[in-house]
Amino acid sequence: MASINSNYLKLKAGYLFPEIARRVRVWSEDNPESAKNLIRCGIGDVTEPLPQSAIDALKKATDELGERATFRGYGPEQGYDFLREAIAEQDYRGRGLFIDADEIFISDGSKCDTANILDIFGSDNKIAVTDPVYPVYVDTNVMAGHTGEADENGAYAGLVYLPCTRENGFVAAIPGEKVDLIYLCFPNNPTGAVATKAQLKAWVDYATENGSIILFDAAYSDYISDPEIPRSIYEIDGARDCAIEFRSFSKSGGFTGVRCALTVVPKSLMGQSESGEKTAIHPLWQRRCSTKFNGVSYPIQRAAEALYSAQGQGEVAGLIEHYMGNAKILREAAEKAGLEVFGGVHAPYIWIGAPGGLSSWDVFDKMLGEANVVITPGSGFGSKGEGFFRVSAFNSRENAFEVARRIGDLKW
Amino acid sequence: MASINSNYLKLKAGYLFPEIARRVRVWSEDNPESAKNLIRCGIGDVTEPLPQSAIDALKKATDELGERATFRGYGPEQGYDFLREAIAEQDYRGRGLFIDADEIFISDGSKCDTANILDIFGSDNKIAVTDPVYPVYVDTNVMAGHTGEADENGAYAGLVYLPCTRENGFVAAIPGEKVDLIYLCFPNNPTGAVATKAQLKAWVDYATENGSIILFDAAYSDYISDPEIPRSIYEIDGARDCAIEFRSFSKSGGFTGVRCALTVVPKSLMGQSESGEKTAIHPLWQRRCSTKFNGVSYPIQRAAEALYSAQGQGEVAGLIEHYMGNAKILREAAEKAGLEVFGGVHAPYIWIGAPGGLSSWDVFDKMLGEANVVITPGSGFGSKGEGFFRVSAFNSRENAFEVARRIGDLKW
Repeated sequence: MASINSNYLKLKAGYLFPEIARRVRVWSEDNPESAKNLIRCGIGDVTEPLPQSAIDALKKATDELGERATFRGYGPEQGYDFLREAIAEQDYRGRGLFIDADEIFISDGSKCDTANILDIFGSDNKIAVTDPVYPVYVDTNVMAGHTGEADENGAYAGLVYLPCTRENGFVAAIPGEKVDLIYLCFPNNPTGAVATKAQLKAWVDYATENGSIILFDAAYSDYISDPEIPRSIYEIDGARDCAIEFRSFSKSGGFTGVRCALTVVPKSLMGQSESGEKTAIHPLWQRRCSTKFNGVSYPIQRAAEALYSAQGQGEVAGLIEHYMGNAKILREAAEKAGLEVFGGVHAPYIWIGAPGGLSSWDVFDKMLGEANVVITPGSGFGSKGEGFFRVSAFNSRENAFEVARRIGDLKW
Repeated sequence: MASINSNYLKLKAGYLFPEIARRVRVWSEDNPESAKNLIRCGIGDVTEPLPQSAIDALKKATDELGERATFRGYGPEQGYDFLREAIAEQDYRGRGLFIDADEIFISDGSKCDTANILDIFGSDNKIAVTDPVYPVYVDTNVMAGHTGEADENGAYAGLVYLPCTRENGFVAAIPGEKVDLIYLCFPNNPTGAVATKAQLKAWVDYATENGSIILFDAAYSDYISDPEIPRSIYEIDGARDCAIEFRSFSKSGGFTGVRCALTVVPKSLMGQSESGEKTAIHPLWQRRCSTKFNGVSYPIQRAAEALYSAQGQGEVAGLIEHYMGNAKILREAAEKAGLEVFGGVHAPYIWIGAPGGLSSWDVFDKMLGEANVVITPGSGFGSKGEGFFRVSAFNSRENAFEVARRIGDLKW
């Protein structure tokens, strides 16, 4: 009989967000009246309309497909030059960072790419993730057979977990042991923490020294307003030789339902083959895209390109201002309620300590039952997330004010 | 140092189509005048405008994203119900085949899904492919470490190759040995062959008996005009228990640049876990999609849905009639030129024997140099493709006539 990938059986019952959806569904069925007032601050999904520049470009490109003369079939698997060039110029070269257009790979999502990137690496790498962590990094390593079973806290044997705590400001310390692949995410999901230049430099130095590769998830980089805080790992000298960067239009351009992202694989990045030879990583990812992917929809790539126009840049700035305005309202309400509040300054996530010895899921149930607000329990992101919860600032202003009011009304 | 997936180093220099592109580029630079008359019948890429129904739906859905009230963020990773239902109803239930909407997974391409499907299977499966074969099936198995090195004919150790020849009408015979996963593609790329109900039944019976799983690529199913020829593997009794089916809007709706496809994983399909237990395949693919994918762009799914409207169905039929008209013109021209012609009746590909002892690449060079027409050398699809070449019918009518004329003018 055909065999399955039994590593899948090691996965815990639900990816965090389906599990939240299930609990909310059950509660809503039991409490149909209260459910009418439900406000979701759980999943980090945008709420505001797509920028007009993106809409216009998407529709224009669609019309092109309706004419024989301007019709386009298969595009380059790695993305159209018009988009790769716009990104190289405005996200990198324009900021003094040397990334070429053909080091940028257009994809349909950073979640997909942070998952798929494992395809090109060996199965013998020592892998480090932070705790708490975006669950996709862990689950895809489980699926790929890079781990043993999970313990009672949900920690998988074989992974190196780097604790992110109050004490280290939710920025993981450099590990004492040697690891080969390291997932870092700044601004961080879920804690909203950002890393300073010095902190990232320490990571790049560590990776350089150990021949490690940093998988740097910068999906929220546009939420950074302080110019002293790096928006790209490539702001650190040496990062071109030790880091892959993931960026997304999901949270900057409101593209969560439109689907477009990018991954930067510098040509100077090297790994080691089974026979011990230094091997460039770029051709491997190039080949993976050619063989297992067919590129992002042409009209969608035009929509992403439009975000780099003057109009688009203004619209993106407006979206971020909107969500960060919400973050400020929520943060201040939580502080006023006497809660311990982190994040939410250069990130759309607020990370809050659960008061009075409540567990993360206790807070989830309390917020759902008493305030009719969906949050994300911190323990869903790892054992060090226990005792915290995440509030997403992705909402309408009206809802942000209402959630702030309800947080203030709650008896903690 | 971080290790790479050294299986990638076993891959041959180029995926077939990049290699063709390279040769055409070199020739065009050397022959700029002749290059002006170049006609491409190589890669199977559509040329005709996108159906108006799809354009209208895509633009309408885009406008919805521009309004707060109708904005949508993340969609279901497995696809929106409106599209899954339309497919279940019109491609399956309406034809008497029992496939539920939640057995249908919407993806961004059949190439991607036939590649990604390996994620959920074990690494100890015996894998069979046809020869000639769509190269993605082979290359993704190489990348996943399911093979040894390639021999001088490009055949990888560890794979079971099933010859498709003149003698068997390019429909592989049932293997004498037991295999676990079998890739079948009908209508076939590259040979244009179709399988009768009796031939598919033999495969389903074999799979049922051996606990094998058939990976059935039906990307070209809409090109079948004879009602006696199965358009879906599920037309065969028992296939729900032994087959996964891949379909695509690329060649039916002209979606090669738009990107939308679907994969059917019946809930009754089982595999075996490491510990020998029967395990359902559907939850594994469901989980893979949730963790490694974020769904297809909402406006694109609306465009695909529109292909199922009365207008859309008419437009799809018109596209197929157009391309099959080309196939007829090309087929007849090749026959008139005394060539040995296969396919092109229920498929947009014509498979032609290379005359006079020419090799596949000899014909490629001759067609490029003397007729200024790009074809695909059969040997690019496997050793049994040597001595054949593939002509694609995806073109304008004008170009089809012109290619037919040039084939007639050539001295073979």
